[in-house]
Amino acid sequence: MNYKLSRYILGQIALIEAAFLLIPLFIGAGYKEDTLLAFALTIAILLALGIAFTLKKPEVLALSAKGGFSLVALSWIMISLFGSLPFFISGYIPNFIDSFFETVSGFTTTGASIIGNVEAMPKSLLFWRSLTHWLGGMGVFVFIIAIMPKAEANIVQLFRAESPGPQVGKLVSKLKFTARILYGIYIALTLLEVLLLLVGKMSLFDSLIHAFGTAGTGGFSSKNASIGFYNSAYIEIVISIFMIIFSINFNIYFLLLIGNIKQVLKSEELRVFLSIIAVSIIIISASLTLNAVYANFGLAARHSLFQVASIISTTGYATADFARWPLIAQMVLLLLMFIGACAGSTGGGLKISRVIILVKSGLREIKKTLSPRRVSAIKFEGKPLDTAIHHSVLRYFGIYMIIFFMSVLLVSIKMEGTASAFVTSFTAVASCLNNIGPGLAKVGPMGNYAALSYFAKIILSLDMLIGRLEILPMLLLFYPKLWINK
Amino acid sequence: MNYKLSRYILGQIALIEAAFLLIPLFIGAGYKEDTLLAFALTIAILLALGIAFTLKKPEVLALSAKGGFSLVALSWIMISLFGSLPFFISGYIPNFIDSFFETVSGFTTTGASIIGNVEAMPKSLLFWRSLTHWLGGMGVFVFIIAIMPKAEANIVQLFRAESPGPQVGKLVSKLKFTARILYGIYIALTLLEVLLLLVGKMSLFDSLIHAFGTAGTGGFSSKNASIGFYNSAYIEIVISIFMIIFSINFNIYFLLLIGNIKQVLKSEELRVFLSIIAVSIIIISASLTLNAVYANFGLAARHSLFQVASIISTTGYATADFARWPLIAQMVLLLLMFIGACAGSTGGGLKISRVIILVKSGLREIKKTLSPRRVSAIKFEGKPLDTAIHHSVLRYFGIYMIIFFMSVLLVSIKMEGTASAFVTSFTAVASCLNNIGPGLAKVGPMGNYAALSYFAKIILSLDMLIGRLEILPMLLLFYPKLWINK
Repeated sequence: MNYKLSRYILGQIALIEAAFLLIPLFIGAGYKEDTLLAFALTIAILLALGIAFTLKKPEVLALSAKGGFSLVALSWIMISLFGSLPFFISGYIPNFIDSFFETVSGFTTTGASIIGNVEAMPKSLLFWRSLTHWLGGMGVFVFIIAIMPKAEANIVQLFRAESPGPQVGKLVSKLKFTARILYGIYIALTLLEVLLLLVGKMSLFDSLIHAFGTAGTGGFSSKNASIGFYNSAYIEIVISIFMIIFSINFNIYFLLLIGNIKQVLKSEELRVFLSIIAVSIIIISASLTLNAVYANFGLAARHSLFQVASIISTTGYATADFARWPLIAQMVLLLLMFIGACAGSTGGGLKISRVIILVKSGLREIKKTLSPRRVSAIKFEGKPLDTAIHHSVLRYFGIYMIIFFMSVLLVSIKMEGTASAFVTSFTAVASCLNNIGPGLAKVGPMGNYAALSYFAKIILSLDMLIGRLEILPMLLLFYPKLWINK
Repeated sequence: MNYKLSRYILGQIALIEAAFLLIPLFIGAGYKEDTLLAFALTIAILLALGIAFTLKKPEVLALSAKGGFSLVALSWIMISLFGSLPFFISGYIPNFIDSFFETVSGFTTTGASIIGNVEAMPKSLLFWRSLTHWLGGMGVFVFIIAIMPKAEANIVQLFRAESPGPQVGKLVSKLKFTARILYGIYIALTLLEVLLLLVGKMSLFDSLIHAFGTAGTGGFSSKNASIGFYNSAYIEIVISIFMIIFSINFNIYFLLLIGNIKQVLKSEELRVFLSIIAVSIIIISASLTLNAVYANFGLAARHSLFQVASIISTTGYATADFARWPLIAQMVLLLLMFIGACAGSTGGGLKISRVIILVKSGLREIKKTLSPRRVSAIKFEGKPLDTAIHHSVLRYFGIYMIIFFMSVLLVSIKMEGTASAFVTSFTAVASCLNNIGPGLAKVGPMGNYAALSYFAKIILSLDMLIGRLEILPMLLLFYPKLWINK
């Protein structure tokens, strides 16, 4: 581990976080809120730390793969610790573990909340909370790479560690330009959504909040009833479409920009993603209609579209209390939580490309069991799948399942033995590990995480980080050799 | 597929089932019950079918692996169909799907029941129901092989298809003697348990019922409150010990018989099995004590021992309503459902040896992720694990998980969207696929499966067969090529 370089990069990140905290500081000043001191103090602490850590430039700029991955994990924990200070110091979230949970949930774009009455919170805190979604969506290091005048170290690892999915594709040969293109697309799409929400007569503040929540596929809202508050088909459809847009691989938009539509249409991941959405909407709206949950099929289809888009994109916005929908609808949504968004998007979950590879593996294994002599290679995106990637996906799934079940056991400690607690524990872990936000039962779309024990909140915070960073960086923190070897 | 040989073997099995049905017929006659006609009619049908099918001996005695495996699946479906006739014809289970569910649950040693008031059932039907546990526990083909004067075909496949676990070991060079030794041990242990239960002042009838349920790791009882009815520490401890005994690989008893104790002590599967039991009892009795569920630690430990033994052995007897225990206790039991018993025992679940291989794979993959250059072979039972077995275990787990989630989705259809229905659907599938019996919520140890839809009961019946025959034989039934090719 290159301690000096790591310290230097952590210092830079502290300075960047301080800079972003200026926005809610000004908002707080504009609205004359009592959060000014909390933001000012947090900024001061980050500045002091950032300056101290960046005073001396490191001589050696080399970073091992393991060092890079664990540095990413450390950075995310650091920004979450300091990012939670405004909530804690202002006293609006009086307990530090609660503040930390809320901030981890923000940066990891989970959207799980411990706040019961969001509408009673100061605007500055709500803005900061949603800004963490936007920053966490694209990633901290992508930002650093984009703004850095020149690459200061072999930071490809940092980029890899933050980018979701089994493979990382550079769009152009230079990583810095890739990062800038990604951020450019991200900013442009976010602004477009803000505009369209303004057209729908949403206030500017709320439009920013909900665009941040959509862009990062986070799901924090400024309304207690989430998007259901507006009861507007226009707003729901705009947000549904943008949730889907932000959960598609950003490479697709780059291809569209350079006019390579043929390549876009060939994308297997995109086709499967859209098919899963279509099938899920059909099953859920059929079940809602057959059970007469809504007055007519149109209403059932509208809520199905929104909820399917919200869950598969791992955003977590709600227009309805789907925890009261028929069980089959809930089960389909639960399955979508695990499937998640496309690789290279801002969404969470296992990722469509991993699911495709897993399902194709499963089908091939069934075929192999039936006819052992016939072996066929798995094809993905039109090409035979690389064995190393295939194995890494299987490995990922195995470790993911172990973490899932261990977490459910740990979160269940001290819970009462009711069916509601069972579903709460099970879906809280599913929701946090996949960076969704709401689960079912007590942590359903109209509930929140406040009532869970602090121990459970710490486990779930770790799960959110593990989910967002896709296991390995967080796993490395528990690898003693890394800290001993230089 | 060798149709003529298959028909012949199915005919033999029909005759054997008819023979076993004579016992409940006599019991019904002895107790002057109104089930005589139902049993007589069933026997008549089986006799007619059996004689018709065995009139002409097949010329070709060859059986392909696939043919053999699917023949086993067909046989189990056949004995379940005919075995359910006494319940149906007598009118005590007026719906045929319910009768079929109950009988599949018997033969597969699951013990899931749709009967609310067991104590109101005629003794002859209860006896038949528990006898199916005992027959299904060791397997139908093991019985045929044991009684057959000489092997009529290459029936090793049939033996393999019915024996649980990733590997099948012949105890002695001749399969027939292996089968006889296995049945010998099985009968001796069953009789020993009957004796010990009689000593505990249980009636002969109930002793037989509960010994059958324990030996097959089934779990059907003649009492509504299951073993809780007796409220006797002696009976609970006897049954706990025998549940554990019957879920240990029978090879262990063969090794003990021939005095090879060194080999027994070296068994990794046995050591891991007993360790899991010990750790689970500690966690559960601690949680019961801390939550003051029972008056004292002794009582908590006693119920923990019984329930852990009952679930990990996949028997499913109960002395307490564990669906009301603290959540962590329920979650540990749920995990034990999936883990299951040792390979080569009468128990279900994934089997300890598979779990060992899966966990070791997982740990090796984590190590590989951390240090990609260091590759270490997996060791199992002191030897490097064969790659073919390793891959087949991974394959098994993958297909098993797919079947599990598909079944949960299907069973959820038409269920209401409550937490209780969620837990019911989830644990009903977990319980049936692993051949346990009770689940949680509505299918908990004090509930039953009666209220589920007929569609759900059919899915769960298939799950029970898939679990008992370990997937492949049932999978082959859906493989069209098998039926076309001769």
